Amino acid sequence: MDDKQIMISRREALVGSGKVAAGAALLSYGAASLFTPAMAMAKETVKFPWGYTKIDPAEAGAIAYNNWFKHFCCYAVVSGILEPLQREIGDPYASLPLIAFKWGHGGAVGWGTLCGSLNGAGIATGFIGGHEGEKILNDVIAWYTETDLPIYKPKSPKAQIKNVNTSDSPLCHISVGKWMKKEGVAFFSPQRKERCARVSADVAMKTVMLLNDWKDGKYKETHGSNVKEHGLTTQLNCMECHGDDVPEPKR
Amino acid sequence: MDDKQIMISRREALVGSGKVAAGAALLSYGAASLFTPAMAMAKETVKFPWGYTKIDPAEAGAIAYNNWFKHFCCYAVVSGILEPLQREIGDPYASLPLIAFKWGHGGAVGWGTLCGSLNGAGIATGFIGGHEGEKILNDVIAWYTETDLPIYKPKSPKAQIKNVNTSDSPLCHISVGKWMKKEGVAFFSPQRKERCARVSADVAMKTVMLLNDWKDGKYKETHGSNVKEHGLTTQLNCMECHGDDVPEPKR
Repeated sequence: MDDKQIMISRREALVGSGKVAAGAALLSYGAASLFTPAMAMAKETVKFPWGYTKIDPAEAGAIAYNNWFKHFCCYAVVSGILEPLQREIGDPYASLPLIAFKWGHGGAVGWGTLCGSLNGAGIATGFIGGHEGEKILNDVIAWYTETDLPIYKPKSPKAQIKNVNTSDSPLCHISVGKWMKKEGVAFFSPQRKERCARVSADVAMKTVMLLNDWKDGKYKETHGSNVKEHGLTTQLNCMECHGDDVPEPKR
Repeated sequence: MDDKQIMISRREALVGSGKVAAGAALLSYGAASLFTPAMAMAKETVKFPWGYTKIDPAEAGAIAYNNWFKHFCCYAVVSGILEPLQREIGDPYASLPLIAFKWGHGGAVGWGTLCGSLNGAGIATGFIGGHEGEKILNDVIAWYTETDLPIYKPKSPKAQIKNVNTSDSPLCHISVGKWMKKEGVAFFSPQRKERCARVSADVAMKTVMLLNDWKDGKYKETHGSNVKEHGLTTQLNCMECHGDDVPEPKR
């Protein structure tokens, strides 16, 4: 069996949309060998992490904004980042059902924990960069907590909103709750939905901008380890829940 | 082309470990047809959600416990549930790099938000059940907040621990922080690691038990919608952060 055949993954050879013809040509002289042990080896050529090619932050933002209205925040950001990679890279991204990550909405099926847009950024950077992706996610979360959001201005907004706010927290409940109070609107209002769709666009765009820097070798992580710094997994708004009585974790 | 060929996915036909022989037999009378448009149609036969076959909760727990010490909580639960499905079902599960979900550790790279074990349960139930999986995740989260954990007793514990606690919260920071205070140990202690590994086993087992009921048609969701009940994405321990001054969300 030709070495080249072994190095071509089953995905590239068989279903990578633009690569079917090439696969057919390479394999035409011995299709029976598809079912030799060498084929099992070929599976291993799908390396992890899945990698990255630079994409347009504006496209990621537009997809995320629009897809929020289909399946909410987590799906919005996953698809904002990975839909362009499905097109540009093909498999394994193309075979990943992005709808599988819808459950992250509302801080995990409405429990108000990790903002679904950040969960989506974690899922995307996990596939793209593996352990390296964690640095980017860490920086995206820090940026999210410190920044007046939303920034994104859709071409065709579905509702008009007046306010931006800094969440000081990656938690859905705190982030959206503060904004709702400022805007004076209810959770099921068109304004709140508009805000969350725009925040999803912001997170998708920020993540893509850092990923593009990373691809160019220009990315430097900026946020350190919360755990090492504080002796416990934590956000950085301690007094918001603890008041003046912030416990000192045992070291 | 035989209808049966069209209905067999590329994954089942080519790489599903136990199915290679069957695929070879079916395809042996016309391998050239692999590269016809019919093959592109075959890709569509990988349906979403990916489905489920009943697995042993004890196996899921043991995998989760052991895998915690490799890549922490989120990976532990994802692998506790999906490794058995990779073996029992093959692809598409077998092609999913479970290590991609490591980032959920410590409530998302150490930010103390959604407990990584619950993030792992969300990822697994997302692939398995899609929208249906959200009901199971919702019940697993509710159970997590109400239950004295850890329950799991490993055959060969890596450390001895004395305490269990009810978190009243799906947040890593609150869940592990309360337990650390009760046990009197630091975050980087062997005891804390043991506790989180056991909690991961508990979450994997609980999720599998509900999934097994679901597969048997016996599952009934028990926890309602936090959002509909409270007018906002939220956990249910309002006074723990807000004190007596719990805001009433605008309706």
